[in-house]
Amino acid sequence: MNQPKPIDQSWIDNAAERQLTLTKPPGSLGRLEEIGNRLAAIQRTVTPDVSRKRIYVVAADHGVTDEGVSAYPREVTSQMVQNFLAGGAAINVLARHGQIEIKVVDAGVAADLAPHPGLIDVKRVRGTANFVHGPALSRDETERLITAGIDLSQAAHADGIELLGIGEMGIGNTTAASAITAALTRTDPAELTDRGTGVDDRVLNHKIEVIRRALALNQPNPDDAIDVLSKVGGAEIAVMTGVVIGAATNRIAVIADGFISTAAAALAVSLCPHARDYLFLAHRSVERGHAALIRLINLEPLLDLKLRLGEGTGAALAMHIVDAAARLLSEMATFSEAQVSDKD
Amino acid sequence: MNQPKPIDQSWIDNAAERQLTLTKPPGSLGRLEEIGNRLAAIQRTVTPDVSRKRIYVVAADHGVTDEGVSAYPREVTSQMVQNFLAGGAAINVLARHGQIEIKVVDAGVAADLAPHPGLIDVKRVRGTANFVHGPALSRDETERLITAGIDLSQAAHADGIELLGIGEMGIGNTTAASAITAALTRTDPAELTDRGTGVDDRVLNHKIEVIRRALALNQPNPDDAIDVLSKVGGAEIAVMTGVVIGAATNRIAVIADGFISTAAAALAVSLCPHARDYLFLAHRSVERGHAALIRLINLEPLLDLKLRLGEGTGAALAMHIVDAAARLLSEMATFSEAQVSDKD
Repeated sequence: MNQPKPIDQSWIDNAAERQLTLTKPPGSLGRLEEIGNRLAAIQRTVTPDVSRKRIYVVAADHGVTDEGVSAYPREVTSQMVQNFLAGGAAINVLARHGQIEIKVVDAGVAADLAPHPGLIDVKRVRGTANFVHGPALSRDETERLITAGIDLSQAAHADGIELLGIGEMGIGNTTAASAITAALTRTDPAELTDRGTGVDDRVLNHKIEVIRRALALNQPNPDDAIDVLSKVGGAEIAVMTGVVIGAATNRIAVIADGFISTAAAALAVSLCPHARDYLFLAHRSVERGHAALIRLINLEPLLDLKLRLGEGTGAALAMHIVDAAARLLSEMATFSEAQVSDKD
Repeated sequence: MNQPKPIDQSWIDNAAERQLTLTKPPGSLGRLEEIGNRLAAIQRTVTPDVSRKRIYVVAADHGVTDEGVSAYPREVTSQMVQNFLAGGAAINVLARHGQIEIKVVDAGVAADLAPHPGLIDVKRVRGTANFVHGPALSRDETERLITAGIDLSQAAHADGIELLGIGEMGIGNTTAASAITAALTRTDPAELTDRGTGVDDRVLNHKIEVIRRALALNQPNPDDAIDVLSKVGGAEIAVMTGVVIGAATNRIAVIADGFISTAAAALAVSLCPHARDYLFLAHRSVERGHAALIRLINLEPLLDLKLRLGEGTGAALAMHIVDAAARLLSEMATFSEAQVSDKD
């Protein structure tokens, strides 16, 4: 795998120096200054531009839904893909609002989807295997799905995209993300499993038991992200892992959405530590496991709006903030340009 | 004063019912659902629309700058007004990014400003009096400035504006806002005075002493917001207080920016308790006094980006979130429209 290069601290310093010349008290734009400086380093310019934006909404089904771990039936995955393509889902509304291009990716939906100009087919499996009985994916399938994600970022780069986001749809995928988080952080699933789309106490306890059994049976190796992905992951998570790696390789800033997307980002950072330099976390999800992943990646999310929808909805909102940070650094007048007196 | 009417709970209920029909798990959009429901009640429709946005950036000078409480010289107020009019300030960048109209209001700048199509003159004083020696404004001046703010919201309503923001510029105004906050919350200024645009420890201690002396001399009555405004407030704060009241009277949602804007909002709520129904707080400022005002008003800010610039910058960013909440409620497909299976 092509390893992404780290960003260059000298560009952070150059941007920080420019921040001091802009008509505002030093540091008064808080996190927007940090974000702007990192974008400067990612793009190697003190006037970064992230106006061309795309979110890959990656969908797949999960064999573990056979265990009754979700509040919604499995066919909702493909129904929601149709909703994305028709423009009626939350992510479509937010993408129109934020002038973000949406590409829906079929990474492994357990249904035949009719071709559509907004749909990209990278499907290798019709849903994962039920990981209570064995690995969710073969190692080969997992690697091919990661490569498909890397290729999506390469395509975004070729299309001139400057800011990428990842989001997902997959009934059952909070179960997979909780299992991944438990494996990566070596934590008991009871401490980081939550209600997903809204299961009750009885189903939540069952979900925890299912994850414990899957981990005990499959024994994913926390130091081998591909092993974790193949044993207790999912096809959409593997593709998103690849998108993050490919974004970093192509020097594109990338925003992970919520719990499941952040699990993919954590796996990407595990495989390619410098991918973190290009990564932003959109928001703090209400799913308990998300906090553990945030600590693991060690990046502060941009928003805290109690979201738990997925689809890339948090990423779409966070893109407005990241773009604002770039525009402030690039477009604000300097003290001398504006003839404003600097600090006493 | 025309008291704003409370919003009607039945519209919140109607909106909450519509939320349940939209293609997402119940409650999964978190705070965006709460915001959308409140907008529905403000506009009396379950498909609210806040696409037409305006921020009033209100500027004035402060006599208390004679005491050496700020890191910047007083003339920066009028210089920054010119920067706003020329489009080079942070608020201009964010307004262009968020498609927000900016109107700059001269509430009491201590300089003659040339007429400009983007500048509204409601000036009655050339800077406040130094409140260490007596009231900042007369009661009559204060009432006229509040009325000018109410008129600005009336004008916004006439122009079809659906979402208002308030922001400010005024060297010295964190000193005024800290004094207002100390008066309203009956707290020692040492507990809520901070560095403003960036003063050092010595100036910070002096600033606290100045506020203590002003409060001891003027004895503002915390139960009389106009008394507080006239004794230790500022002209831009009085106008912003009026904008919040006028927004509520005209049934327009209004977003307060940071510390100084929130002080104006707190005074508006003190004068007109139902103004709170129409109010949103943009962000959690790093200024210590802001937390006390947030507790007083008892509304959770939308963003936490460590901003401390003012100008309406936080309000501009928060408008994107509030607009997103309206669009989600108004534009998302329902389960039956999208033929998606609802919860088991």
